[in-house]
Amino acid sequence: MTGPDAVFPRADALAKAVGAERYSADVTPPGCLWAGVRRAGVAHALITGLDVAAARATPGVVAVLTRRDVPGTNRQGIVHKDQPVLCGERVRHRGDPVALVLAESREALALALSRIDAAFSPLPGVFEPAAALDRDAPYVHPEHPDGNLLAYGLVEKGDAPTALADCAVTVSGEYHTPMQDHVFLELPNGTARLTPAGVLDMVVSTQAPFRDRFEIAHALGLNPWTIRVRAPYLGGGFGGKDGATVQCLLALAALNAGGRWVKMVWDREETFLAGYKRHAAVMRVTLGADADGTLRALTGSLLFDAGPYAHLSGEIMALALEHAGGPYRIPHTRLEGSCAYTNNPVGGAFRGFGVLQSSFAIERLMDALATRLGRDPAGLRLQNALGRGEPNAIGVTPEPGAGAAECLTAVLAHPAWTERAAWKRQAPPFTRRGVGVTCMQNAMGYGRGLPDAAAAKLELTKQGTFRIYNSVPDMGQGNASAFVTMAAQALHQSPEAFALIQPDTRHCLPAGSSSASRTTFTFGNALLGACRAMEAKLRARAALALLCDDPARLILSPGLVTDPATGAAVPLARLGALLPRDDRLCVDQFVMAVVENPPDTGRQFKLGFPHRFYSHGACLCAVEVDELTGRVRLGRCVVSVACGRVLSLEGVTQQVQGAAAQGIGLALFEDPALENGCMGAGDLSRYLIPTALDLPDIDCLIVADDEPTGPLGLRGMGEVGIHGPGPAIAQALFDAAGLHVTRLPVTPEDLLSALGGPE
Amino acid sequence: MTGPDAVFPRADALAKAVGAERYSADVTPPGCLWAGVRRAGVAHALITGLDVAAARATPGVVAVLTRRDVPGTNRQGIVHKDQPVLCGERVRHRGDPVALVLAESREALALALSRIDAAFSPLPGVFEPAAALDRDAPYVHPEHPDGNLLAYGLVEKGDAPTALADCAVTVSGEYHTPMQDHVFLELPNGTARLTPAGVLDMVVSTQAPFRDRFEIAHALGLNPWTIRVRAPYLGGGFGGKDGATVQCLLALAALNAGGRWVKMVWDREETFLAGYKRHAAVMRVTLGADADGTLRALTGSLLFDAGPYAHLSGEIMALALEHAGGPYRIPHTRLEGSCAYTNNPVGGAFRGFGVLQSSFAIERLMDALATRLGRDPAGLRLQNALGRGEPNAIGVTPEPGAGAAECLTAVLAHPAWTERAAWKRQAPPFTRRGVGVTCMQNAMGYGRGLPDAAAAKLELTKQGTFRIYNSVPDMGQGNASAFVTMAAQALHQSPEAFALIQPDTRHCLPAGSSSASRTTFTFGNALLGACRAMEAKLRARAALALLCDDPARLILSPGLVTDPATGAAVPLARLGALLPRDDRLCVDQFVMAVVENPPDTGRQFKLGFPHRFYSHGACLCAVEVDELTGRVRLGRCVVSVACGRVLSLEGVTQQVQGAAAQGIGLALFEDPALENGCMGAGDLSRYLIPTALDLPDIDCLIVADDEPTGPLGLRGMGEVGIHGPGPAIAQALFDAAGLHVTRLPVTPEDLLSALGGPE
Repeated sequence: MTGPDAVFPRADALAKAVGAERYSADVTPPGCLWAGVRRAGVAHALITGLDVAAARATPGVVAVLTRRDVPGTNRQGIVHKDQPVLCGERVRHRGDPVALVLAESREALALALSRIDAAFSPLPGVFEPAAALDRDAPYVHPEHPDGNLLAYGLVEKGDAPTALADCAVTVSGEYHTPMQDHVFLELPNGTARLTPAGVLDMVVSTQAPFRDRFEIAHALGLNPWTIRVRAPYLGGGFGGKDGATVQCLLALAALNAGGRWVKMVWDREETFLAGYKRHAAVMRVTLGADADGTLRALTGSLLFDAGPYAHLSGEIMALALEHAGGPYRIPHTRLEGSCAYTNNPVGGAFRGFGVLQSSFAIERLMDALATRLGRDPAGLRLQNALGRGEPNAIGVTPEPGAGAAECLTAVLAHPAWTERAAWKRQAPPFTRRGVGVTCMQNAMGYGRGLPDAAAAKLELTKQGTFRIYNSVPDMGQGNASAFVTMAAQALHQSPEAFALIQPDTRHCLPAGSSSASRTTFTFGNALLGACRAMEAKLRARAALALLCDDPARLILSPGLVTDPATGAAVPLARLGALLPRDDRLCVDQFVMAVVENPPDTGRQFKLGFPHRFYSHGACLCAVEVDELTGRVRLGRCVVSVACGRVLSLEGVTQQVQGAAAQGIGLALFEDPALENGCMGAGDLSRYLIPTALDLPDIDCLIVADDEPTGPLGLRGMGEVGIHGPGPAIAQALFDAAGLHVTRLPVTPEDLLSALGGPE
Repeated sequence: MTGPDAVFPRADALAKAVGAERYSADVTPPGCLWAGVRRAGVAHALITGLDVAAARATPGVVAVLTRRDVPGTNRQGIVHKDQPVLCGERVRHRGDPVALVLAESREALALALSRIDAAFSPLPGVFEPAAALDRDAPYVHPEHPDGNLLAYGLVEKGDAPTALADCAVTVSGEYHTPMQDHVFLELPNGTARLTPAGVLDMVVSTQAPFRDRFEIAHALGLNPWTIRVRAPYLGGGFGGKDGATVQCLLALAALNAGGRWVKMVWDREETFLAGYKRHAAVMRVTLGADADGTLRALTGSLLFDAGPYAHLSGEIMALALEHAGGPYRIPHTRLEGSCAYTNNPVGGAFRGFGVLQSSFAIERLMDALATRLGRDPAGLRLQNALGRGEPNAIGVTPEPGAGAAECLTAVLAHPAWTERAAWKRQAPPFTRRGVGVTCMQNAMGYGRGLPDAAAAKLELTKQGTFRIYNSVPDMGQGNASAFVTMAAQALHQSPEAFALIQPDTRHCLPAGSSSASRTTFTFGNALLGACRAMEAKLRARAALALLCDDPARLILSPGLVTDPATGAAVPLARLGALLPRDDRLCVDQFVMAVVENPPDTGRQFKLGFPHRFYSHGACLCAVEVDELTGRVRLGRCVVSVACGRVLSLEGVTQQVQGAAAQGIGLALFEDPALENGCMGAGDLSRYLIPTALDLPDIDCLIVADDEPTGPLGLRGMGEVGIHGPGPAIAQALFDAAGLHVTRLPVTPEDLLSALGGPE
């Protein structure tokens, strides 16, 4: 195998660059119907009336459906199914849907939706997770046995309270991270129809086409095997398309469309209103150390705002607890976590999946400890960085690999660090400069408790080329292209010899969701297994054609199998033409290894705890604060990453830069302005994300690493890069302006206040 | 894995016992046409006229075809394509076909065939292979560059002429083995039609359905991929259905049948006339030894009667040369072999494939040497038996395994040997008794030079049972049933869970021919590979259903996959229902290992020389000679066999007994009475094979053995048992009556002559 490709032959680049790639949103069958929903617009209420007569009478309207038209359980949700497809009695957040309209045109659809007369009897809402857990808080799900406590977990190692009492120094803090919207370019959308054969045929922008079948089947009382889901390339997902968005509503529409195609697209405002969000979190934590800075104990509690429905809140909180100690050596820990139901938007999966929240807390504590001890924050981190073979904060010893110390050391050697003093001195008038560095880590895969599995299918075509049946959607992260690169290397073929079939439950084999930094690792390993089978098959079949009785000596090269003993060769095109289809297929499966002897702690987490594989990184942010406006400009961002072997330097760099940009957005730009369950910033004129002009150059440093069980040595790394900017910017702002950041995003107002600016 | 099954659950037993099994001969589509050919009836002639007008005018006749109607090369043959489908200018043996008739009924067919008026100008024939090699002999193929010498080979090790000159004792002999007919129960037959889609769909009693497509395509100028060949269970084959019998003629008929089904069945007399035969051979050999009996050198020449067409004559001669030294330690050898074209019936593959001929010669020489030295023939063999790791007579060191000494020792412990003196003393009046023992060996597989490969396909059905796509025809030897046993053991399922799909080029994958003792080894290994893939698949898929993240701990049991950690189980029926078809298939391939560093000798043999794997055996025959009639009765036959691990004791015993019976037939019964190319015994009233009443009890002794590379430890053994009876009976007849047998079959006249009986 080779090292990183200098030129990354990204398989999807050209089609995307010229606009030829067809996303789900680009599928609009001629004559299709349009579907949309009327949403509650109130955060918590009983539905007292729903008059759809005027909507039904609107010209061009084909059907108006309500709760009574939902044939199945009317319940969706990845693990806990508590979210209705259409609400019938009660709405629990402003985005809850109460009626579904099918119309001949988007105009008729909009008109009909506006004519639905829904009457609500408001209920007291609960909008703060801490308040939600009060005994007398209004209940979001009155039937839920634990009131508004959706999930609780405790992980413990050693005796943290006692150890903390013995510490020479302790620091405490309460840290807040905000709700965040994914702001994917391609809005939630899909197209569906019921075929004459009774198949519900769907094209959806989804991260989990195979699971979608079961979601839809459960919600609507269908046979999952009669549902076909296709998932073209996504225009972004970031977790926000892991779990049903349009799926069940669209399926319900298709069941009522008389066999016609139906299309549903949420607009941007609807997506802000109804889409999943990163959980806002509050973390109260205390870290204790010896006088020399050696960490001794960590205690704390994490509280997540789940919104009204479970989605993956419990699992996200578990991952937050697993990462709450950071990549540091802490002998005693006691961490508890809670998820509270509220009437805010629905919390769900988002790149970083709980890790972002608890990383911010531990990294801020490390800075506070460094300040208290008069230490350099980087040196304190290096002193305590977890070494290979050492158990982490929850008592698990992850697989060895390059860790936080290597990653931090790489960043500290960068001129942005070594020459920071000069850079700070050169600050223009009325600006202050500061630099911060932090560590990052992110587990890979689903974790223990459910199989992190993938099945890959590879076909030799009749023409002697190959088809990869990709089963995990590519939402832009480039995994599909990585599969081509892997297969091309494994089979010694040029990448052009491979066609990629994008996920389609009819033709591809199940491989789980596109999430959890798992796609290249899990499906990649399955694909390489299929490639090995294919190579053995090609040798064996070519041996027959070449009258060679030692297939092992045959050599695969682009388009050919050659016998070096005779110089004779057989083109793959000839093999492809000769073999029957069943013999041109290779299938292999892979299941990611899990922690074999987990500690007793965290046993209450059935799914997704703990993890065996981690990727690491470090992040430097150099900030420049405008003393007059409080505006923060990033002068430089440097990210190092240790993620096994790098198959494509460009691919890794793109992921690192994208993740860092999203982390920067959360740290400095994205303020949902949530109030009483309503996002004050519910459109892109108010919810600001960084543009290219707002971002600095982001340097990506690769730390030498190798994952023996990974495909071509890699580990997943789509998420790890998002965790650095928040704490690194916070540390840099302290360096620049003495600001003690405990809450993200940091606003110009916060800075002006800290600087004692114009009041 | 378990040892030999006490009860052999032969998958095909019940259907065959009750007559429900459908052989190719049982396929007679309603309204099908009947095809047959007019054969030359002269051994060597030019065709001077062929009047088919009367035949065409016969009521019920659909077509009469001649050479001019053959669209392709008109040439068939497994390696050398020198045999016409229909002869146009010349006939080279009495069975050569000159015209093909299609008729509505068998009666019309017979009448039309009788009305074909063929005129021949006789050519001088050549009927003795030695005479055929004379410079002035008539040529069978005038265009053949080497005259009537079809193939020549020389294998040499050390310096045999010099070593022979130094020997204390030498013995020489000229040994003859006869032509032999396979006398399979099911005659050559098949059914074919050209479908509207242009597919030539055939059901044929064949040992090589996958190769047949290429034979037909080459001969008739067709695309092989448009030919589908199905091979139901055969009612016997023994090599006689390896190579085209009806195939090309039947395909030609189907091309001219207007899309109707056509059936062709050769009758018994036609099969004697036109079918392939075991090559008659003459072997002049000399064996030298030290005074203590240690073998020193072997020289000799073998001459095979190929008949008029090549078939596999060269390859058969090569195998004869490879086995000419027997399983004995002989430091110096020089052996040459020739195949001569003659106008006798066509020589071809037959169980034992050349080995039978040269085994008779070497075993007879061993007896002659024992006589000369005054030694016990068994003791002399034990003294010289090849040990593990020792090179054989052509300088190849075969894979280790139980050998001739172990097999012979097993037979010598049998009461038929230990109590032979008493048994002989108890001979009734006017009878003499004698006992003989010999060794046997037979290589397995195609040997070096062409891949001995198989691809196996295994399917989990939607119902949770399995389908084995068997690719190697079962001609009665039981390989198909063995595959069920193997798969059932490998997957921990009951044999009833497996359905066997018999060879069908449309649905099964290529796996070579049913021949060369290779089927259970080669396809069995491929099948076990597919089973391993299936087991991994079942574990991986069940793990998903059971939410188990450690597939390795799951347990397969009949119909279930169980998680011992939780007790939860998922039925295979559920997995079958869930998985798409492409994921219910497992395919694996296997290529038999070959000799990696063959000696320089025998390089002229491109295909099938030398071999790496051998099975061994020993054979005891106890004979009783009637002094008054010369009739020989076998009192006892004991056969030991070392063939790796025994999967089914009953299966191995059946093969040993069947092979021994066929060897006994050749030794004592089957006299073709060949004269001027005409079989005097051309029907079953004159060509006698032993019936059950003619055969003794045949005891089968298993010698403990294990083949590490074999499926479940086995090696193929369908042929080895045929080699013993000839030389063992010869030795026994010397023991009983002092007869020096040099020529098989031994007739009552030979014995009466030796006994000095009534003249």
